Amino acid sequence: MTFWKNLFGNGDTATAGQATSPQGEMLEAAGELPDGGRIVFSTTRDIDLYELEELCDAVGWARRPMRKVGKAIQYSFLVVSMWELQGSRRRLVGFARATSDHAFNATIWDVVVHPKLQSKGFGKALMRYAIAKLRREDISNITLFADAQVVDFYRRLGFVLDPEGIKGMFWYPD
Amino acid sequence: MTFWKNLFGNGDTATAGQATSPQGEMLEAAGELPDGGRIVFSTTRDIDLYELEELCDAVGWARRPMRKVGKAIQYSFLVVSMWELQGSRRRLVGFARATSDHAFNATIWDVVVHPKLQSKGFGKALMRYAIAKLRREDISNITLFADAQVVDFYRRLGFVLDPEGIKGMFWYPD
Repeated sequence: MTFWKNLFGNGDTATAGQATSPQGEMLEAAGELPDGGRIVFSTTRDIDLYELEELCDAVGWARRPMRKVGKAIQYSFLVVSMWELQGSRRRLVGFARATSDHAFNATIWDVVVHPKLQSKGFGKALMRYAIAKLRREDISNITLFADAQVVDFYRRLGFVLDPEGIKGMFWYPD
Repeated sequence: MTFWKNLFGNGDTATAGQATSPQGEMLEAAGELPDGGRIVFSTTRDIDLYELEELCDAVGWARRPMRKVGKAIQYSFLVVSMWELQGSRRRLVGFARATSDHAFNATIWDVVVHPKLQSKGFGKALMRYAIAKLRREDISNITLFADAQVVDFYRRLGFVLDPEGIKGMFWYPD
């Protein structure tokens, strides 16, 4: 709590692990780093696309047209970002978004966590945060398409593979 | 062409297999039935939710709250309906919708074809129509979650199962 009070100076209204930035944006605490950095989540869409590209580069993703990435963010139902705070600096270290019909189904896309934060529980925390946000919107069917090497990661979060024989399928242009 | 001219009286502007209804709605021809009925597609969202519920009942789906179905249609990127025309009457005989980020990905949900039109190529035509609409919007990654008994149906349409080990996964509330 002291950290949040110090950082944003709004200790009167903050609840445990939550704070509002000077821009009125709600941030939620995710954890701390050994070097004193703090990790927070946000659902703001105000993401620097160059910074997101840098994050995706860091995990080796193929580059995508920035204009289309911006459009995809604009039309996503949920956008979750994870930030590292060091003093007054903040850096994008995680990202996920979900498309949805706002009623039954959501599909999570583009889950990325900076390599230096991987295998430390932050990816799991990011996903739990996204799931909680979707549940709060009364979405009951949360889906995703998992690359082979992260199937176990999602399984540990409670995602089920091919339930009742339901299969994920893809159509690509010829 | 004679049919479309007779039906809507706008033969001057109609192209092969397309017509505009008196309400200004674009319809596309899907085929004919032995009893003289005509099958057309539309992308209008103006669907009677009771009629949609009746169609879903006919294939044995569990009922869902109509208010949520309406919201899901409202927030879908694409809504495709298939209609049987007999004289001036029209009846909903097929439906599919897709969520999307309007940029990269679309996910198709709630594909339903009336039992009397199944195994006659109309389901395939409905899906091809939906795929063509999504492709026209520059969506390249079209996905869906197929029940075990329709995996082969989608495979014949060009959908690929678990490409490169990518797996569809589901999260359900406890």
